[in-house]
Amino acid sequence: MIVDEGLELLTEDQARGLLATGEVGRVGITIGALPAIFPVNYRLIDGSIVFRTAPGSKMSAAAEGAVVAFEVDDYQLADRSGWSVLAVGRAEVIHDVAMAFKVLDARLEPLAGGRRTAIVRIEPTFLSGRRIVHDLPPSGT
Amino acid sequence: MIVDEGLELLTEDQARGLLATGEVGRVGITIGALPAIFPVNYRLIDGSIVFRTAPGSKMSAAAEGAVVAFEVDDYQLADRSGWSVLAVGRAEVIHDVAMAFKVLDARLEPLAGGRRTAIVRIEPTFLSGRRIVHDLPPSGT
Repeated sequence: MIVDEGLELLTEDQARGLLATGEVGRVGITIGALPAIFPVNYRLIDGSIVFRTAPGSKMSAAAEGAVVAFEVDDYQLADRSGWSVLAVGRAEVIHDVAMAFKVLDARLEPLAGGRRTAIVRIEPTFLSGRRIVHDLPPSGT
Repeated sequence: MIVDEGLELLTEDQARGLLATGEVGRVGITIGALPAIFPVNYRLIDGSIVFRTAPGSKMSAAAEGAVVAFEVDDYQLADRSGWSVLAVGRAEVIHDVAMAFKVLDARLEPLAGGRRTAIVRIEPTFLSGRRIVHDLPPSGT
């Protein structure tokens, strides 16, 4: 177990496993030369992160063809536990009826409603994760 | 109330109010030309976002002097409600004993522990927020 400043570095498989359990993540894009982060609800479909947005929105324009960051985490402040996963990869807007059916099968419905009929897919090229570890008790106790 | 695709656009004051209530946010930076998003626990101190990291870490190096994004959100999947706030501004590593005392006063202690003695401050130049709104009942009912 590799620990760096109180954070256990997860393996790629562990990170992928956690990514599959999440429902809301945050996508980091650049809009007009400025960085931006927006929450989206998503599913992991065929190993890629998939979410819905509105066609022609700033989000779909910024994501199309760009290398973006995607983050998921879960923290419990009560016991100071938690983990985060970061995926980085190229995003693309998918115009594919087969994917539309997979999105429906996965019950991927945007929390906010609206006409979010554009499907964005991020294929993770880099995948990493960290988990908070607190001091372990001395061995043998 | 301005509503765009199921999201109410919040005023700057509303966004600042929500930013003040959060405990864990996500900072979007660029590391080696790639975008990255990392969760941090933070406080709003004198109107700025303040968090702790390790001196000499990739985070402190990437944040120093850069324009970064900072996002906080809160979602309840059960009733599909939630909000998010996005702040964009220049980050800087603060070497200032007065700020160190403010950080201690604000009980800003990193969840992950470790030697996180570098203080990063983001002064929000742009502040925006959205809240999910579902169809309102017809007026008069």
